[in-house]
Amino acid sequence: NKDKWLSNDFAGVVTGLAWTAAGGEILFVESSISKGNGKLTLTGNLGEVMKESAMIALEYLRAHAELLNLPIEAFDNANVHIHVPEGAIPKDGPSAGITMATSIASAITKRKVREKLAMTGEITLRGKVLPVGGIREKILAAKRAGITTVLLCEENRKDVNEIKPIYIEGLEIIYFNTIQDVLKTALLDEKA
Amino acid sequence: NKDKWLSNDFAGVVTGLAWTAAGGEILFVESSISKGNGKLTLTGNLGEVMKESAMIALEYLRAHAELLNLPIEAFDNANVHIHVPEGAIPKDGPSAGITMATSIASAITKRKVREKLAMTGEITLRGKVLPVGGIREKILAAKRAGITTVLLCEENRKDVNEIKPIYIEGLEIIYFNTIQDVLKTALLDEKA
Amino acid sequence: NKDKWLSNDFAGVVTGLAWTAAGGEILFVESSISKGNGKLTLTGNLGEVMKESAMIALEYLRAHAELLNLPIEAFDNANVHIHVPEGAIPKDGPSAGITMATSIASAITKRKVREKLAMTGEITLRGKVLPVGGIREKILAAKRAGITTVLLCEENRKDVNEIKPIYIEGLEIIYFNTIQDVLKTALLDEKA
Amino acid sequence: NKDKWLSNDFAGVVTGLAWTAAGGEILFVESSISKGNGKLTLTGNLGEVMKESAMIALEYLRAHAELLNLPIEAFDNANVHIHVPEGAIPKDGPSAGITMATSIASAITKRKVREKLAMTGEITLRGKVLPVGGIREKILAAKRAGITTVLLCEENRKDVNEIKPIYIEGLEIIYFNTIQDVLKTALLDEKA
Amino acid sequence: NKDKWLSNDFAGVVTGLAWTAAGGEILFVESSISKGNGKLTLTGNLGEVMKESAMIALEYLRAHAELLNLPIEAFDNANVHIHVPEGAIPKDGPSAGITMATSIASAITKRKVREKLAMTGEITLRGKVLPVGGIREKILAAKRAGITTVLLCEENRKDVNEIKPIYIEGLEIIYFNTIQDVLKTALLDEKA
Amino acid sequence: NKDKWLSNDFAGVVTGLAWTAAGGEILFVESSISKGNGKLTLTGNLGEVMKESAMIALEYLRAHAELLNLPIEAFDNANVHIHVPEGAIPKDGPSAGITMATSIASAITKRKVREKLAMTGEITLRGKVLPVGGIREKILAAKRAGITTVLLCEENRKDVNEIKPIYIEGLEIIYFNTIQDVLKTALLDEKA
Ligand SMILES: [Ca+2]
Ligand SMILES: [Ca+2]
Ligand SMILES: [Ca+2]
Ligand SMILES: [Ca+2]
Ligand SMILES: [Ca+2]
Ligand SMILES: [Ca+2]
Ligand SMILES: [Ca+2]
Ligand SMILES: [Ca+2]
Ligand SMILES: [Ca+2]
Ligand SMILES: [Ca+2]
Ligand SMILES: [Ca+2]
Ligand SMILES: [Ca+2]
Repeated sequence: NKDKWLSNDFAGVVTGLAWTAAGGEILFVESSISKGNGKLTLTGNLGEVMKESAMIALEYLRAHAELLNLPIEAFDNANVHIHVPEGAIPKDGPSAGITMATSIASAITKRKVREKLAMTGEITLRGKVLPVGGIREKILAAKRAGITTVLLCEENRKDVNEIKPIYIEGLEIIYFNTIQDVLKTALLDEKA
Repeated sequence: NKDKWLSNDFAGVVTGLAWTAAGGEILFVESSISKGNGKLTLTGNLGEVMKESAMIALEYLRAHAELLNLPIEAFDNANVHIHVPEGAIPKDGPSAGITMATSIASAITKRKVREKLAMTGEITLRGKVLPVGGIREKILAAKRAGITTVLLCEENRKDVNEIKPIYIEGLEIIYFNTIQDVLKTALLDEKA
Repeated sequence: NKDKWLSNDFAGVVTGLAWTAAGGEILFVESSISKGNGKLTLTGNLGEVMKESAMIALEYLRAHAELLNLPIEAFDNANVHIHVPEGAIPKDGPSAGITMATSIASAITKRKVREKLAMTGEITLRGKVLPVGGIREKILAAKRAGITTVLLCEENRKDVNEIKPIYIEGLEIIYFNTIQDVLKTALLDEKA
Repeated sequence: NKDKWLSNDFAGVVTGLAWTAAGGEILFVESSISKGNGKLTLTGNLGEVMKESAMIALEYLRAHAELLNLPIEAFDNANVHIHVPEGAIPKDGPSAGITMATSIASAITKRKVREKLAMTGEITLRGKVLPVGGIREKILAAKRAGITTVLLCEENRKDVNEIKPIYIEGLEIIYFNTIQDVLKTALLDEKA
Repeated sequence: NKDKWLSNDFAGVVTGLAWTAAGGEILFVESSISKGNGKLTLTGNLGEVMKESAMIALEYLRAHAELLNLPIEAFDNANVHIHVPEGAIPKDGPSAGITMATSIASAITKRKVREKLAMTGEITLRGKVLPVGGIREKILAAKRAGITTVLLCEENRKDVNEIKPIYIEGLEIIYFNTIQDVLKTALLDEKA
Repeated sequence: NKDKWLSNDFAGVVTGLAWTAAGGEILFVESSISKGNGKLTLTGNLGEVMKESAMIALEYLRAHAELLNLPIEAFDNANVHIHVPEGAIPKDGPSAGITMATSIASAITKRKVREKLAMTGEITLRGKVLPVGGIREKILAAKRAGITTVLLCEENRKDVNEIKPIYIEGLEIIYFNTIQDVLKTALLDEKA
């Protein structure tokens, strides 16, 4: 409950927003790239739907590497490992999809992630961003954690509009329809 | 419930029709082709029968590539990933068979899918189209979503004839016995 | 319940006879051969015993290719996919064994299957045909479906003799002890 | 219940003896050898223990090929498929071990199996034959099936001595401690 | 319950701290490196979360080999086997993460582990050390076992501060935020 | 219950001691080496913990082949199959660890095992021998089976000291801390 945004010193680490029975909280998605032949490893006590989100994110980036200015050869000769601490807590659902895609893209390019940024949204195989639930709780958790910018699906704008303005004061919320645009906003040119 | 037909800008994305306890609705089948050696990946919280539909669709297209004017070498050197958003919703049954076949064929050829088109029907390994259930609910969902053309199995014609004409006004419904004919109608010559 | 024999235009499609709580009915076994290295894929909601029948059928044909005048190199460089529509209906049991063997042999050789033919019988790894249950119900289903020739195990002759002659009028029933003889009767020289 | 010994025309087919709640009965173990790289396939609705028996039998023969005058290169370049009809009946337990070893050895060498022979006994990895249960019921089933010679473990001799002589009249029972000796007795020089 | 720290004669053996319903106790993590191609084998009756800890530890070391002065080629040509005695006792949870990372690093480099050292802490894929539970019980178990130095996560300092000073007399407790610093403290230059 | 020590004519066969609800008994561990690439096959109705013992034993021997005077190339080019008769009896637990290690070492080197020898003890990946339970029952079973020498973990000495001397008369019991020393005592120079 007390997790805080820490730093953007590590490429491949992106802050997501989760929604559980206990309320909203932030989580971290960590991607590591190592020499290999395309194997995807997933840890962090992830359920089947969340594992599928990672598969979709990786396939989307690989298939659209040229469009996204990602080094295609990096995918061919790499294994990708995605971990979501903390290991004791089961996690599931599709809402970390865009966080996973951003995490892989950052790890592959070594580009830093924008400071004090968090995001939540489902990803589809064509790169569309889908709305997710628990927006109110997630927004509050982001503020508590020191986040200043939140990336959401355009279709979640209506959920934000139902939150009292006082609660989101000082928080920039940006809406997206495609993961391509999420990546442009989330990744800095600076290398980690 | 509120999903709408969006665009045909993406090759590989085809609109299907599903029937659940909550009524009819549209769904999207997304196929992505990337360099590989013939692996088929399936995501979207799909049950065993729906996964088998994808295997049948892919094998049919591969085995009849010449007949269908599909580039046979594309199958040899590609991995195919099929996703059906949204990940949180379990999906099953054989009725997305022709939608999956059309989605793969579109992704392989980059040919656009006809505008405002939806379809539902089981596929067999010889390319026969089989009738499916829930036709009334599916037709109504298609209209709500902005669909103007629906492709069905010839054996489902009798189910359409039982629907009050007012409900299908403005909707062109075309009947098929083979996936070969479905593809001819569904795929445009224009590349995405 | 209303399935009918359709045509023998497709090599690899053979009509079987099934027996369920709801009575007898016909089913279709479809085999597709594509370039590969010997992988066997099975779809159609098949139980473990039915999947084993397919494995036995394929191994028998492969091990006795020379005896059966089958092109041995076809087995070495092919993947075999066997599907039994309809995907929504679970199927199991060993009685489709000879149907599966005939389906694979037809697909490998492109030889047409005899018109209006159906069959039911377990296969063993030495090519023996074993008797199966539900003969009365299966015979009636075959007649309803427009079948004129039924292939059975010699040990099922006694089951046929207990059926009133009026019910099998116009139906030729031929009895076999080996799959080798089943194939000689079922496969035409004509290519599909 | 009514199965009979049939013939020894097929190399690789050996008669075993099973013991179920319904009494004793004979079963057939069928082995088929085809070009391959050492894969073992098991069908016939076999339980885990019975599958392990097949693995032990194959490993014993492979590791002691020279001692047993078996062609070692046959193991290197072959796949072995073992089937036990009938597919609808679940089977388990270790007592088919020596039957499986004899079946594989016969299939590999094409040597015929002695006429009207049946056997039952567990096999160990060093080639020892272990005693099994249900001897009385198995012996009676063998007689009913037309068997004239039964091979057992030496430690089962005491179980045979408890059967009334009238029941085993006309039946030759031979006892063994090693699979090596079982093979010498069971396999003829004549090729199938 | 009565396990004692033994010696640091074996590279690859590191003492961890576990917390069960029965209280705290020490455990040993043993890593063995042998010629291979990157396979990771895990034994010791480990649950899924504990297996994931091992995967994370290995991936972290492999991806940061240069930074950590580990021989990268050792990872490419090795299999890693991690065992946690005793086999009869099920173990789970993320708290052995840093112990596993230290164990692998010691086995790969043959560097001895500091004498009478124990540690507990979760590891993340970026090399962050996370706090774990049961600190009081673990500290007491460490003292009983003859441990003199305990490595913990910085965030567990508050848990130690709640323990009566008398209980930790003679025990050096060092706090860390990164596995990189844990390794610097835990591994000696001396080879085993 | 009535199993007896038989002979040491077979390299790779080592006598272990088991403890079940029905009391102590001896069991045999059989290892077979055949041409291969390092695959480990385990049969005999073994539970997960017992399978892990075999994996630990094999990895220990492979990683320390030089130290143990084992032919390292034998491991590279061999498959190892370990079987524990009798197949109908489920077996589990870590106490066959040193028996399995001795069995593999004997099979690899063809060295005979000392006559009338039995052993029980858990093995760890660094080659440590751990104490096991049921010592009293196991010792009695060993005597009944004709065993004259029993190898135990040093930490089990206290369990033996609690047995009335009359029960262990004529039995030599030797205690060990390492598998390296077990092997020196258990394996003869004579080849089988
Ligand atoms: Ca947290
Ligand atoms: Ca959702
Ligand atoms: Ca929807
Ligand atoms: Ca249907
Ligand atoms: Ca039907
Ligand atoms: Ca049957
Ligand atoms: Ca029978
Ligand atoms: Ca037994
Ligand atoms: Ca302990
Ligand atoms: Ca924790
Ligand atoms: Ca016993
Ligand atoms: Ca123990």
